[in-house]
Amino acid sequence: MPRYKITVEYDGTPFVGWQHQENGCSVQDVIEEAFLKFCQQRHPIYVAGRTDAGVHAKGQVFHVDLAKSYPPRTIVQAVNFHLKPHPVTLLAAEEVDQEFHARFSAIARIYQYYILNRVSGPALSRNRVWWVNQALDVAAMQEGANYLVGTHDFTSFRASQCQSLSPIKSLDTFHISRQEDIIICTVKARSFLHHQVRNMVGTLKMIGQGTWHASKIMDIIHAKNRSAAGMTAPPEGLYLSKVMYE
Amino acid sequence: MPRYKITVEYDGTPFVGWQHQENGCSVQDVIEEAFLKFCQQRHPIYVAGRTDAGVHAKGQVFHVDLAKSYPPRTIVQAVNFHLKPHPVTLLAAEEVDQEFHARFSAIARIYQYYILNRVSGPALSRNRVWWVNQALDVAAMQEGANYLVGTHDFTSFRASQCQSLSPIKSLDTFHISRQEDIIICTVKARSFLHHQVRNMVGTLKMIGQGTWHASKIMDIIHAKNRSAAGMTAPPEGLYLSKVMYE
Repeated sequence: MPRYKITVEYDGTPFVGWQHQENGCSVQDVIEEAFLKFCQQRHPIYVAGRTDAGVHAKGQVFHVDLAKSYPPRTIVQAVNFHLKPHPVTLLAAEEVDQEFHARFSAIARIYQYYILNRVSGPALSRNRVWWVNQALDVAAMQEGANYLVGTHDFTSFRASQCQSLSPIKSLDTFHISRQEDIIICTVKARSFLHHQVRNMVGTLKMIGQGTWHASKIMDIIHAKNRSAAGMTAPPEGLYLSKVMYE
Repeated sequence: MPRYKITVEYDGTPFVGWQHQENGCSVQDVIEEAFLKFCQQRHPIYVAGRTDAGVHAKGQVFHVDLAKSYPPRTIVQAVNFHLKPHPVTLLAAEEVDQEFHARFSAIARIYQYYILNRVSGPALSRNRVWWVNQALDVAAMQEGANYLVGTHDFTSFRASQCQSLSPIKSLDTFHISRQEDIIICTVKARSFLHHQVRNMVGTLKMIGQGTWHASKIMDIIHAKNRSAAGMTAPPEGLYLSKVMYE
């Protein structure tokens, strides 16, 4: 059975998250349903990184084994036809060998977190940003982010329901930039703990607004205690932007 | 009565357009309603440029005369509170003198038109872009746009219901740029005819896809006939980005 690597964009707003759940519609559900309509056969899909309810993806990746071979563009266009009217769209498909696994073959993931930093709430960017009306100091946030780069025990930034075997993770890069009213936090690592990006952003917001000094990040890391860090930033500002493979 | 210049952002998707109409909810309606709740008194508002149904604004401007004076930030925050849950948000307020008129004092308007140019339709940018799946040549579109800059009779780009006294308009600048999958058309003029931007973009799309050569713009201008130009690009890609004053 040929295996395909598929890249997908979605608006997380109407979904219970990536993964199938009993209490609502998931991104996985609507994609599997669209493949069923396309192939007349149910094929399970395997994702690079599950996203929570309300979290978006610009470049999520999954793999699927199909009963027969199709041109990649046919898969993209046919499945997109069946995905309507859901805000989910396949961007690319590529036949890969049987060793490829969307989750286990990934060597890095890039997440972006968008903060709308102005007095007025979002109109055009509703459900796409976290609105913070206090002025945030991007340079201080970057200084805080620099302390997070490298290998650390991220227990203080880990959700209680996180299933990772180890709290030790390595952040490759963490860049904070401002484009007019929008602050974009871009972080890259091989993998992340559950809620890690949102917990780091909620903590950097405390630094940006001047409540904490950037160096407090060291204390928070050493505390190994979730209550030492800032709030969990809301899901609607978070995007899984890219998954990288060899 | 103090006069205020107000800048507002809105998502045009759920509205019948800026102006009050019998058949649905307009942006003007919800703003006048929010001012009524704030001031306990009805104040008419005067806009820089009416937008059609589905057209967005990043920086629309209107003016309003209020019965008494308020700090600008109070107006912004109080009216925004009453604007909920509509996707309309005041960005700024400024007290201006009685000669100021949002429409007649404007010296230039900048519109932007967003085209999503890729095989796959929009998920995150749904209702925010015109999706064109044929590859568009941005350099050719820019060459076409260059013919439109300057003073011309824009009859070929004018909606039949346009109420302007003259079809002669002067475009200051018209820039086309690509940012990954998005083509942004940015055009500046003192004023525009009804549907002028959407008709120019629909025509540049014909050039971008190679159906017409850029120099055909000259023939279209000289034809002074709406049917000589391309289609009217759909409203959801259009943004009133900025209104400029002395």
